[in-house]
Amino acid sequence: MSIKTFVEQSLGCWRSQRSGHNLAFQHFEEVRSTIQITAVSPDDAGVAALCQTHGFEPELAIAPFHMAWEGESDWDEDEKIAGSCLLVPIVTGASTGKLLRSQGYAETIPAVGEYHFTEEGMFVLLTRYDRAAAEERIWFGTDNLRFRVSLIRTSDGQGVVTASFASEIRTEMPAK
Amino acid sequence: MSIKTFVEQSLGCWRSQRSGHNLAFQHFEEVRSTIQITAVSPDDAGVAALCQTHGFEPELAIAPFHMAWEGESDWDEDEKIAGSCLLVPIVTGASTGKLLRSQGYAETIPAVGEYHFTEEGMFVLLTRYDRAAAEERIWFGTDNLRFRVSLIRTSDGQGVVTASFASEIRTEMPAK
Repeated sequence: MSIKTFVEQSLGCWRSQRSGHNLAFQHFEEVRSTIQITAVSPDDAGVAALCQTHGFEPELAIAPFHMAWEGESDWDEDEKIAGSCLLVPIVTGASTGKLLRSQGYAETIPAVGEYHFTEEGMFVLLTRYDRAAAEERIWFGTDNLRFRVSLIRTSDGQGVVTASFASEIRTEMPAK
Repeated sequence: MSIKTFVEQSLGCWRSQRSGHNLAFQHFEEVRSTIQITAVSPDDAGVAALCQTHGFEPELAIAPFHMAWEGESDWDEDEKIAGSCLLVPIVTGASTGKLLRSQGYAETIPAVGEYHFTEEGMFVLLTRYDRAAAEERIWFGTDNLRFRVSLIRTSDGQGVVTASFASEIRTEMPAK
């Protein structure tokens, strides 16, 4: 699996059903959301800016994309969860690379993750933050069904604080 | 990863938090359960009987174990979910094998699954039933934390009907 193919297979509009597990308290969270993944031109000014922030040449950017989400959690049904970010992959090897993000999941600052693909084609992303580390696995069940397991670890990598699982069904193919 | 090591790491009592996703209806199910995994002697009569049912020599059995679970679902809080089964691994290659079960997950008949370990040490089990196929992935987050993703596919392998995710925390080590 290449990051280019993986991003291409991920484009479009997805309906996501996500369960969060708070491991210490055995609490469940249920989130329903819509995720829109759109290709971004490598020549986009935002891509160049994000590359420069992290000290990479913009020419190294492969298949950058934009992600926007909007959803509702059963923990707070009045509040809309919404956000968006620009993601820029930088290839470093046959199945490895870095993923630059204009905004991280666990903290609201720009983040750089390290990704690799397993032999099964599963995308694995590790992102270190100041006080936490995120570990994400994404794989396809069918062409229009993605699964995503996200763990938030303590920054020393030892404990896992929360785990979540999302089933994502593609409801719209990308616009041509 | 060998099946022997994997089974050894799985022994003990686990507190499980499982989320089920009904993909067509976007329903969530929340299940809290306790899972007890116990080593069984390869000389156990049940092991020999299960091997013979499926046409394997009992000498091929590696690290057989017993699993018992008891839990509650938010779909029906009055009903206790409980069950147990004997599982017998049969090694067929360096990281592949079969798993004989006295009772399957999706149907209540004996089942034979095919397993393999990925390079990451993730256990992947595929089990075909008459009208469905189960695909299960189990991996460790830490020594005392396991994750399990289970998919139920239509028997042709095309559609995925339900997906579930369990976070399992070991609360008791196995008795010595």
